[in-house]
Amino acid sequence: MTIEVFEKLLAQRQYKAIKTIFDTMNPVDTAALLPEFEDKQTVLLFRLITKENAAAVFTYLEPEQQQVLLEAFTDTELKLIMDDMFIDDTVDIIEEMPANVVERMLSAAGDKREAINSILNYPEDSAGSIMTLEYVSFSPSMTIGDALKKIKSTGIHSETVNICYVVEKHKLLGFVTAMDLLTCDDDELISDVMDENSVSVTTLADKEEVAQLFNKYDMVSIPVVDKENCMVGIVTFDDAIDVIQEEAEEDFQKMAAIAPTDKPYLRISVWELWKGRIPWLILLMLSATFTGMIISSFEDALSKLVVLTAFIPMIMGTGGNSGSQASVTVIRGLSLGEVDVKDVFRVMWKEFRVSILCGISLALACFVKIIVVDKLLLGTPGVSDNVALVVSLTLCVTVICAKFIGCILPIAAKRLKLDPAVMASPFITTIVDAVSLFVYFGIAKILIPQL
Amino acid sequence: MTIEVFEKLLAQRQYKAIKTIFDTMNPVDTAALLPEFEDKQTVLLFRLITKENAAAVFTYLEPEQQQVLLEAFTDTELKLIMDDMFIDDTVDIIEEMPANVVERMLSAAGDKREAINSILNYPEDSAGSIMTLEYVSFSPSMTIGDALKKIKSTGIHSETVNICYVVEKHKLLGFVTAMDLLTCDDDELISDVMDENSVSVTTLADKEEVAQLFNKYDMVSIPVVDKENCMVGIVTFDDAIDVIQEEAEEDFQKMAAIAPTDKPYLRISVWELWKGRIPWLILLMLSATFTGMIISSFEDALSKLVVLTAFIPMIMGTGGNSGSQASVTVIRGLSLGEVDVKDVFRVMWKEFRVSILCGISLALACFVKIIVVDKLLLGTPGVSDNVALVVSLTLCVTVICAKFIGCILPIAAKRLKLDPAVMASPFITTIVDAVSLFVYFGIAKILIPQL
Repeated sequence: MTIEVFEKLLAQRQYKAIKTIFDTMNPVDTAALLPEFEDKQTVLLFRLITKENAAAVFTYLEPEQQQVLLEAFTDTELKLIMDDMFIDDTVDIIEEMPANVVERMLSAAGDKREAINSILNYPEDSAGSIMTLEYVSFSPSMTIGDALKKIKSTGIHSETVNICYVVEKHKLLGFVTAMDLLTCDDDELISDVMDENSVSVTTLADKEEVAQLFNKYDMVSIPVVDKENCMVGIVTFDDAIDVIQEEAEEDFQKMAAIAPTDKPYLRISVWELWKGRIPWLILLMLSATFTGMIISSFEDALSKLVVLTAFIPMIMGTGGNSGSQASVTVIRGLSLGEVDVKDVFRVMWKEFRVSILCGISLALACFVKIIVVDKLLLGTPGVSDNVALVVSLTLCVTVICAKFIGCILPIAAKRLKLDPAVMASPFITTIVDAVSLFVYFGIAKILIPQL
Repeated sequence: MTIEVFEKLLAQRQYKAIKTIFDTMNPVDTAALLPEFEDKQTVLLFRLITKENAAAVFTYLEPEQQQVLLEAFTDTELKLIMDDMFIDDTVDIIEEMPANVVERMLSAAGDKREAINSILNYPEDSAGSIMTLEYVSFSPSMTIGDALKKIKSTGIHSETVNICYVVEKHKLLGFVTAMDLLTCDDDELISDVMDENSVSVTTLADKEEVAQLFNKYDMVSIPVVDKENCMVGIVTFDDAIDVIQEEAEEDFQKMAAIAPTDKPYLRISVWELWKGRIPWLILLMLSATFTGMIISSFEDALSKLVVLTAFIPMIMGTGGNSGSQASVTVIRGLSLGEVDVKDVFRVMWKEFRVSILCGISLALACFVKIIVVDKLLLGTPGVSDNVALVVSLTLCVTVICAKFIGCILPIAAKRLKLDPAVMASPFITTIVDAVSLFVYFGIAKILIPQL
């Protein structure tokens, strides 16, 4: 359905037709459509959505439109929406709203208010902050028939019945699946049907680790328990997908030296993009002062044999690329839980051997290239066998240093409880640049007598 | 449970104890444990796993162990495992096995053989290749009671009953959830209960787009239909999580100039790591020949004013970082479906304004830094106001060019049906390096009379 159609229908005041169209649309698509209109029209259009879909559409809107609507809602409208929204979604919205809107939302929350406040109190990246309190629980002594009755009376308000949890005196014992409920006989006991191998997380577990558990165990939801193994909520797979996606995007942005944002590119203002990018650019530019100083200090050597300058970009570039390869591999390994801080020596030993192989191959390729292309083909003045040797040796040593720095810094960052991703390409490149210049001029002074 | 415990129990032939321990473990954890043992022990241990868990454990094993077991299995054992495995998992395993093992597996597949072959025939990255054929379907004229009976008789073999599909003459009409089945009355008609707003994909849809649909619509499974809207299978959320994760890792690796692999870091051999990294390193090293040639061609200017060399790494580095920022942002925007090829002018206009802001800020910071640090504080010989002006102007122009190249190349790649991620940092840096040198020497020749 195109925007033009809605604009025409709005202009003709064909509200009933709009209502009918909204009825056939998926709430996600309706939510994607609304931001294309002006605030006044958005409010008008939103009021044409049927009651059953309103809360879902509202949940999927961008914070800007949610705020517009919240400010336009009457108290009754606000109450209706809040009643139909899941608690975890409500919390997500509250976290984006200004104080006066939050106050109105909380006072309309009714009996959900306490639950909302408890989730708001968990630390930002914890399992508690992304969990929902709406789940179905049974006691082990219930029969399947009892369980079915309980779902019929209360289940409709739960985010998922795909997995129901078995709880006794608040302690988590196991789970039963919708499949169990649908296929077992009514008089079977929950305790006989339930699966005890339940994976659970504590309220304070890191949300990224929780998301990785979904990936590992292929579960639809994971129970969240407190320190005493008492059940407090569940995290559902859709939140886990969001976390996996968000964390990957954050790593991408940090690796490209951009301050992380979760807004879609086309919605970010030019000003915000600039603010996210300029601090790192300036920092990295200033840190290049050191490379400049190193070059200046070898000015004598350079003025005697200017051709040495021509190889600086190639050496720095290859060093930087080698370092990034190692750092990105290790950073992602750490993020996915495939590599741990305690594996540091295994990683170093592996990268050392890889770097020797890469260093030697690159040095050979480089030596041949300089002799064949630069000396014989192009006849670049000043290129001698000695220069080729110096450049190739430098390349080999630089690659070994770069891979070492690239693998060690992310692990060190993790050890210091920093995000390993900040140790990514741009940062490592700056260090590798300085190292490679020292190696270059050091080897040149030894092997070329005239310097 | 530590490996040592199992080793001791194995040495003491306490097989019953091992059986009991396996019984309490999640199949995923059992599968993670087996690769720690020698092949012979792995086979022995696997035979101690109860029949109900064997297929699940087998599914989660690494291909190496799967092959060891498949070669050790008797025909009866193979048949038992194959009967209990889901078809999509079986296909995943078959794709990793050598021809002789595949042959044995297919001949043990029985009535699943045709289904396996049909999935194997879909293109590698298509929805068809990751779907499963095991789903529950109802006709619209059935009652909830009929549906429950159908699930009790056949549902146990389906990968999920969380969403069941409504199909008439093979055409997909809609879906009912486990929640509907559990809460509606037995005499209600499926056609009255079902939800018609069903999101579906075709068998040939790109699996990455399918995964993004899960992220967008928060569904547990998505139906796969052929060109005539006839239902052929479903993709489940766990496969979608795998795809999201895999595609992100592939992008990370391409951005770091590494050939993609999906093996965990600590399991990849040194040789494989080298093979994945060296081609790009050599290619990028050789392409740096051009930067070398550009520098050589300006050798006269450089020998007259050696201090110009000192700023080359800073200019190239900042240009490279600016370009990566733009390219990574656009590459991820394309991957997540936030940016499309048709948005090319919006992207260019946005990046142009950002690049002007970044360029001016960096030029100002750079000018002040050169005057204060290099000229006044360090007194580096040759640094004049003119040199500071040349470097700052170059920086501004380079940043603008870099952001332009960084945003345009990934979109161009997408337009040419190439993967935008290959246009990432290392590739763009190489181009930006060459551009920045031309700009640098060009501006220097104009503004510094002695050159």
